[in-house]
Amino acid sequence: MMTNRHRAFAAVRQHAGMDGAIPSPATTCERWGLCELAFDAPQAARTANPFLDVDLQAVFSDGATTLTMRGFFDGGSTWRLRFMPPVEGRWSWRTSSTAPELDGLRGTIMATPPADDNHGPVRVAHRHHFAHADGRRHVSVGTTCYGWTHQPLERQEQTLESLAAAPFNKLRMCVFPKWYEFHRDPPLHHAFLRGADGRLDWGRPDLAYFQLLDRRIAELARLGIEADLILFHPYDNHDAPAAERWGYDEMPAWAEDAYLRHLVARVAAYRNVWWSLANEWDIMKAKTPEDWARFARVLKAEDPYGHPVSIHNCGRMYDHADPAISHVSAQRIDTVRTSEDTVVLRERFAKPVVWDEVAYEGDVCHGWGNLTAEELVRRFWEGMVRGGYVGHGETYAHPQDILWWSRGGALHGQSPARIAFLRGLVETCPGPGIEPLPGDWDAPLGGCAGAWLLQYYGFNRPRWRWFRLPADGDYQIEVIDTWNMTRTPVPGVHRGNLRVELPGRSYMAILARRVAATGRPNASAPPRAAG
Amino acid sequence: MMTNRHRAFAAVRQHAGMDGAIPSPATTCERWGLCELAFDAPQAARTANPFLDVDLQAVFSDGATTLTMRGFFDGGSTWRLRFMPPVEGRWSWRTSSTAPELDGLRGTIMATPPADDNHGPVRVAHRHHFAHADGRRHVSVGTTCYGWTHQPLERQEQTLESLAAAPFNKLRMCVFPKWYEFHRDPPLHHAFLRGADGRLDWGRPDLAYFQLLDRRIAELARLGIEADLILFHPYDNHDAPAAERWGYDEMPAWAEDAYLRHLVARVAAYRNVWWSLANEWDIMKAKTPEDWARFARVLKAEDPYGHPVSIHNCGRMYDHADPAISHVSAQRIDTVRTSEDTVVLRERFAKPVVWDEVAYEGDVCHGWGNLTAEELVRRFWEGMVRGGYVGHGETYAHPQDILWWSRGGALHGQSPARIAFLRGLVETCPGPGIEPLPGDWDAPLGGCAGAWLLQYYGFNRPRWRWFRLPADGDYQIEVIDTWNMTRTPVPGVHRGNLRVELPGRSYMAILARRVAATGRPNASAPPRAAG
Repeated sequence: MMTNRHRAFAAVRQHAGMDGAIPSPATTCERWGLCELAFDAPQAARTANPFLDVDLQAVFSDGATTLTMRGFFDGGSTWRLRFMPPVEGRWSWRTSSTAPELDGLRGTIMATPPADDNHGPVRVAHRHHFAHADGRRHVSVGTTCYGWTHQPLERQEQTLESLAAAPFNKLRMCVFPKWYEFHRDPPLHHAFLRGADGRLDWGRPDLAYFQLLDRRIAELARLGIEADLILFHPYDNHDAPAAERWGYDEMPAWAEDAYLRHLVARVAAYRNVWWSLANEWDIMKAKTPEDWARFARVLKAEDPYGHPVSIHNCGRMYDHADPAISHVSAQRIDTVRTSEDTVVLRERFAKPVVWDEVAYEGDVCHGWGNLTAEELVRRFWEGMVRGGYVGHGETYAHPQDILWWSRGGALHGQSPARIAFLRGLVETCPGPGIEPLPGDWDAPLGGCAGAWLLQYYGFNRPRWRWFRLPADGDYQIEVIDTWNMTRTPVPGVHRGNLRVELPGRSYMAILARRVAATGRPNASAPPRAAG
Repeated sequence: MMTNRHRAFAAVRQHAGMDGAIPSPATTCERWGLCELAFDAPQAARTANPFLDVDLQAVFSDGATTLTMRGFFDGGSTWRLRFMPPVEGRWSWRTSSTAPELDGLRGTIMATPPADDNHGPVRVAHRHHFAHADGRRHVSVGTTCYGWTHQPLERQEQTLESLAAAPFNKLRMCVFPKWYEFHRDPPLHHAFLRGADGRLDWGRPDLAYFQLLDRRIAELARLGIEADLILFHPYDNHDAPAAERWGYDEMPAWAEDAYLRHLVARVAAYRNVWWSLANEWDIMKAKTPEDWARFARVLKAEDPYGHPVSIHNCGRMYDHADPAISHVSAQRIDTVRTSEDTVVLRERFAKPVVWDEVAYEGDVCHGWGNLTAEELVRRFWEGMVRGGYVGHGETYAHPQDILWWSRGGALHGQSPARIAFLRGLVETCPGPGIEPLPGDWDAPLGGCAGAWLLQYYGFNRPRWRWFRLPADGDYQIEVIDTWNMTRTPVPGVHRGNLRVELPGRSYMAILARRVAATGRPNASAPPRAAG
């Protein structure tokens, strides 16, 4: 079933090439594509609440692997079942349901080879890194548009255009609408319909919103962007009179679970989905530790693909040792020392460390949103050269409060170009990703020992550095200006202790790459990591 | 007795106006001036080692107060006794000595009112601050020229000229010569003579050096600069063959004590002396905790004036809770978070916090010496707005390795002008000094509650801030550009919550001063604090 609105985006989709992302009955589907089964069930649709009263699941099997996916009611008399084939070949499926019309249905799907730009879902790889299912490394460079799917459609389109031209490959976005400073107006759609009493009815998702969300996730996939879905957040309409409050942050437990089940059934088959249990979990006063554990259990039970799961702090970091959490999603706690703590967190949790908030480029009144581009880029480098990942956000004051970090729209800052430069450089590091290496007390060193060594000098501005190269190989050296985005080779090949001349400016780095017997650096192979 | 060398500096001294600083027999002396008694003792001078074999002390009394000062051998057949009258009036003195010629001598001194620019020695005041003995506040703004008294005389003169034009009122300087990167050449004088074996003879101070040191301390006093004398340091000639090593860092205990007694006898009567037990005590491998305690005991026994005593760390901070230590002399331990920790140290030790090293303005290869001027000035502001004090140093690469931080000479940087601006501003804070006040999570607030409020925004660049003023008074507001050194009043008087427009640049501050009934700020009185 393709609605008019779906059709409106078909061109974009085809262009971006995510085959199978447009929900339609399918009997063939590429590996890691989205395969959708749609069923018409008029009897079931007549139950009091088709969302809650009808249970539908399907088992998918290729003989070796069996997956169970929940189906979901999508309005009218339509139920959908979505499936992402994890391997190529013939998959048979069979439904079970409390609704006789939906029970015992069966069929087969042929999973074909993935398109060239389909690398499969992202997973934790080599403990501290990420890779797509096909082994391609994922150097996570995220950005943040918390409420973009709740903006007028024109701005949503503009956001996608901005993302298409930007270096980001992950987007932090709230499922529920947001009410917070610089973003105090009603959403385009709520996530639930209003009941007779005017309050949101947690039992009745607003399908107009969730269908839009589907499309946005698919469009992000086509842009190569992971959709880091924030499942709960504290930015509710606290300023409104009690009768007008939204209450997303205080839903009853049954409604939270029903929402999660619906969301997972709907979007888990999109290969680019990540789950973020919460933004700033520690200021969600109505939640208990057991609530977070329960949400993680629901995800584990409902998502057969094992998408990444994180939970993001405000002041107090979650215990990321929890095995339900795949990676550290950190907000800087200190105003000054931020991503410099990457190694501490890597060692403490033995998981990838993603600094999803190190404060944003901008000039609003708050310290979280008025960094210079230089300082944000510095925080990116400090984190990434230590083997972590860092996220972007932008908060320039705007006469209509159109701040990228909350509403999307246009990017105005100077950091994205530098972040693109950094991402490109990091992607040339051989192996699974940058590992922190024994460096100097005053400058972090990271890379792949013996092969690719990157040292960063931050706000310091040495006129020269002594760079310690292994004595048993030849290296090519480049002086990197991380702000002006230049790479200047030092003539010749080098080994042992080397004095490298620098311009005496801030934001410089040195890259040393081991030269193969051919006299060319070894590390020019395309970045690949075992999955 | 005035040597030729003394005469050579007499003009400078008179210009700077420290009466009594030129050693000469005196019967009148201004309060807190230096009064010197010189004695000729040919018999005593014939002992094997007049430094060690002759004990000389004098008791000074005005009837109410009694002080004991040690005398010292100063070459030829001359012994000197120096005295700083702590109060005006008639002081009688009487010597005791193991040398009959020096025993039982007596006389009187009339202590006259101090000159206008003589405010007496600096002491800890109001727990976290400093003040001169006459109550005048001392807003400590130091700099660092570790080895300046070991440089050629011309450079020493240049250093004094540079200091005369700079905002600094404390100078960190090593008594012993220094051998360290960028400073590897023999000193003008060693602190001891060489013995027959060519090694330094710890029993025989080189008086040419100590007499020069006298003059330098006096000249600093005339410039209004405290001489923060570093008594021991680890920067010895470790690169030299063992036979040529200096060994200042491994002196035998008897020699350490004799050196300290000589030094204190010689310079404690200069009102501008501070004692720093060590630079980077924690990397002086030959020293034990008991050594540091012993040095502090010697100072306590020998210095009747109670000059400030500190001990400066490299990586590990000394336990400044030790009652022998008057104030915290801190080196930043972290490369990023430095003087932001002022409040932590204030509360932990209940003493003034002086960040004597937060890294230096410069561009050498090491992270301790290649800050931008902007970053050093930021560290000054971060520390001082929190009620601490911060010190300067400069390390620009120089073809002859003439780095201010080690050799003095000329200042090349951009921070001193901004530090002068800051010092001038802080000196207008009423009360004993800036106290940290409850501010915002992202910007420290300090000052005098209800009267003078200073908030600093560091590298952040808000376009506006909400500034919380008390509701029960009127305030004048200034927007301060700490880098461009401008103060821009916000028109009108204000109370309660106020939106203050800012330029969206880094390094801004807001100052709010309570307005008296006259409509003019109260805080314009000259800065004074009870002693």
